[in-house]
This record gives sequence, C-alpha cells and structure tokens, in this order.
Amino acid sequence: MTATYLERLAARTATVGSVLCLGLDPDPVNLPAGFSRDLAGVERFAGMIVAAAAPFAAAVKPNLAFWESHGSGGLAALERIRSSLPDDLPVVADAKRGDISSTAVHQAVALFDRLGADAVTINPYVGREGLEPFLDRADRFAYVLCRTSNPGAAEFQGLVVEADPPAGVPAEPLYLRVARRVAAWSPDRAGLVVGATAPDELRAIRGLVPDVAMLVPGIGSQGGDLAAVLANGPASSGEASGRPGGGLLVNVSRGIAGVAVGAPPTGPHVELEERLAAAARDWAARLPVLP
Amino acid sequence: MTATYLERLAARTATVGSVLCLGLDPDPVNLPAGFSRDLAGVERFAGMIVAAAAPFAAAVKPNLAFWESHGSGGLAALERIRSSLPDDLPVVADAKRGDISSTAVHQAVALFDRLGADAVTINPYVGREGLEPFLDRADRFAYVLCRTSNPGAAEFQGLVVEADPPAGVPAEPLYLRVARRVAAWSPDRAGLVVGATAPDELRAIRGLVPDVAMLVPGIGSQGGDLAAVLANGPASSGEASGRPGGGLLVNVSRGIAGVAVGAPPTGPHVELEERLAAAARDWAARLPVLP
Repeated sequence: MTATYLERLAARTATVGSVLCLGLDPDPVNLPAGFSRDLAGVERFAGMIVAAAAPFAAAVKPNLAFWESHGSGGLAALERIRSSLPDDLPVVADAKRGDISSTAVHQAVALFDRLGADAVTINPYVGREGLEPFLDRADRFAYVLCRTSNPGAAEFQGLVVEADPPAGVPAEPLYLRVARRVAAWSPDRAGLVVGATAPDELRAIRGLVPDVAMLVPGIGSQGGDLAAVLANGPASSGEASGRPGGGLLVNVSRGIAGVAVGAPPTGPHVELEERLAAAARDWAARLPVLP
Repeated sequence: MTATYLERLAARTATVGSVLCLGLDPDPVNLPAGFSRDLAGVERFAGMIVAAAAPFAAAVKPNLAFWESHGSGGLAALERIRSSLPDDLPVVADAKRGDISSTAVHQAVALFDRLGADAVTINPYVGREGLEPFLDRADRFAYVLCRTSNPGAAEFQGLVVEADPPAGVPAEPLYLRVARRVAAWSPDRAGLVVGATAPDELRAIRGLVPDVAMLVPGIGSQGGDLAAVLANGPASSGEASGRPGGGLLVNVSRGIAGVAVGAPPTGPHVELEERLAAAARDWAARLPVLP
C-alpha cells in the first residue's frame, strides 16, 4: 500500500468532491422487499449498496458488529465485499477495538491485514501504550473514540478530569483530555471519532486540536447537526489540513440504505439501485469539500 | 440456559475447587514442535489445551483477537471449539466490545447467541446506555474493563475525576468511578476486569465495591500479584458472595499453554497433554476456593 492513509483519503475525497463516508451495516430486519431476511439477503443488499453508492463516497465504513452477528459466515461475507472494492476507496473498519498490546497486535492483524482495512476505530480506555499496534503502521490509521454519538455518552466522557499544571493542562472533560492526548500521539496516524449529535463538544474539540482528522457519525437517523460538522470538522492545521476535505469523514448509513427499504416490492432492482445512487449523490452534495 | 451466570459459575467453581480461568489464545508463533504454524496448528493445539486443562478450570476464556487474526476461518475454528465444550463450563468471550446501543445489540448477538458465550468483556467508555444490550440478558454476564493489566493503563484510567457532592461521591481516579457506576448498574449481570498487575488498585476497588464479581488477568507471564488477588478478589457481599469462589475468576493462559511449547519435539503427544494437565492442576491448586 502506497502513501499515507490521509494522502489516500484526500485523493479519493478530491475525486468524489465530498467528505461522505458510506456506512455499510445492513440489518436483516430492515432489508428491501424481495431480499431474504438472512445473511444471503444482507450480502446481496450490501453488494447493491456498494455498487450504487460507493462511487459517490470518499470512504466506506463497514460496521463489523452487523457482520459478526451472523457468526464466522458473516465475517466471510464482509471479506468478500471488501475484496470487491476498488483500490482507491479507503475502507474504515468500524470495530471499536482496543486491548493490552499483546492482544491489540492481533486485533490490528485481523483488521489491517486479514480484512484489509485502511483505517480502524479504537477505544482509548487502555491508553496509548496498549494501542500502539494500531499506531505503528505508517500506511494505516486509527480513529480513537472521543465523544460518541449516543444519548448516554457523557456518563464517563463528560466527567471533568484533574488539571496538570506543570504541563499547562487545565481541568477539562475526559473527552477533551482524550482529544489532547491523541493529538500528541501520532497526528498522521490517529484521528478522533466525534458524534454529530454533540455539536458543542465537536466545536470545543476542534478548537483544542486543530490538526486532528475526524470521523463523524450521527448524521441522518441519529439527528446530528450537519452545519456544525461542516464548519468544525475539517482540520485547520497539520497533516490533514490543506488537503481536500481536511481529513474529515461524515458517515451516512441508514440515510442511504433506507431509501431502498421503502421501495415498492414489485419494482425492478435497477430501480432500487437508482434510488440508492440518488440518495448517495444527494448526501455527497450535502457534504461537499469546502474550498 | 438455566440459572444466572453467577449461579452457573459458582456451581462449576465448586466442582473444580478453583477460581482458575483457562485462557484460550494460542499464537502460531508459539506452538509446540510438531504443530503447523497456521490456523490448523492453532486449532489442534487449542483442542489439546481444552481436553487436558479445562477439567481443572472454573471457566474458559477465549481471546477473540487471537482467532480473528486468522480471518473468518479463525472465527469458524473458535466456533467449533466452543461447541465442543461441556455445558457446565462457563465460557467468557474476551472481546472488549462496546458501542452505541444500535451497534452493541449486534455485538451482543454475535457473542452471546452466535458464539454461545456465557459472559463477555466490554469497555465502559460509551456509558451504560450504550452497553445495555449486554446487560439486559438475565442469563448472561458482562465484565467491564476497570483497571487493565497493561503498563500504560493509568494514562486515562488513573486520571482523577471530579467529585459529585450531592451524591456523596468524592474526587477519585476514573477506574474507581467506573467501578462505582458498574456496581450500581446491575450487580448480578455486570462485573469488573481488574489486572493482577495493579494490586493496590485491586484492593481499592474491592474496598469500594464489595459485591462486584471480578475477572482478573495478568497472573503468570505478566507478573501479577497472586496473594493480593486471592485476598481481595472474592466478593464479600451481594449476589456473588456466599458462593464458592465469590464470583472471582483468575485467568491463566501462557502459564499453562507455555509448558507444552518447551516440550521435546519427538515426544509422544500424550506427553504434551500430560504436561498441560499437570500445569492446569498446579494452577488450579494455587487458585483455590477459599473457605
């Protein structure tokens, strides 16, 4: 694999003119009419989403849990889908991994080497030392959970942690401390996951760490704030800035896949693909690369 | 599945007379002579470990990353191993999952239903609301990361978080706040992961939450403190107390599997199994159920 992840992401972002990240997490209970409510139906629908929508996306983000919930057969299906994707389309494995380093090294192999992910999502709780296997690959990338998009995210992330006066660090919520630390870890190999459902926190994070790339979920069905994301999502300094998109990726899953679910059951499949493509084109236009 | 997890764990603990948890995480680079350095060798060795050592263990804990690093074929091998285990042997899927609830529900299905785990390990960062799919099953259990066993664990876990005076909660390290909250979540369905490498923190946690079941890694190759674990690991009140083992599980992986790795390459396999059984018997005796 050539170049850094941020370089590959910027090239693809320039090609499509959008920071749209296509979420890939189909659920058997929510498939279009005519698809079997099982793994075969999920794989067929995911293939259709990829064919129709990925041409408009800067990256694709499969959510591993939606595949693992089918067991090893589900992971095998995801492996097939991943191997069908074009080389210039970055793949973010949304797996929320993270463990002590002797385990994390195996998690990194599973996602980077077996699945062939360009980037992954990881959880900061074990600290940088445990997460190093995700950070020591010059051509890959890790988005670290910072402020998640769920209603109860603040339970721990919002706790105010002590100041560190010798380092000039004030008391601040845990999510800001995570952002501060990750920014110092490895700016060209680590970014942050910040939910669009928390626009004030997103603004505060961007103000504190202007150079860190962000992956933003929570737009669409979760009700996130699109304008705030476009205003504060792109990096304004460092490796990710000065490139198309500023290192920003904004995920849309159900907002695209959902348009096929309501399609008439007797329509031809070409119509489903057209609906998916139109939804992806629309989301891509709403998530433009700003000058 | 009948009874609660803590009831099933107590029954098995009483049967074997030990709180030994058998870690199942074979690495192809560390197999005995005569085993192929690939998934086939890993599965064969894991089958041998289970046959020889599991009869002495209160639970078995496969570390999913060691299987996922072989791709979907690795997960399929783990599924085969799990289905070979006796019904009265609790299985802890060490996966360190956790996500917003619409994803966590799929993580829970993957581990509880597809893999058939009795218990899982999860990461607290998203908060209780996101983790509810792991906690709402009356016959399963979740061990929440509290103080991990890695050298850099304190980076975030050791940060002092603000007091909550109306609730009578003092300023305290994040790991203690996590312990405090988890103890209030669902005492019969949620426990804590606390590394044996941090005996002072383990003592502090037990002092704060006397009723929470603990899964303790870090004994053996990581150098954890066995006496401190046996003194402070068992619950002293609540659901987990008053039962054999007090809800404690102490994991040993390399301490058992490692004895086979150094075996003479030309010895018969029965000798490998005897070495593994002897190591498991020895560790079980060092991890007794205290009166």
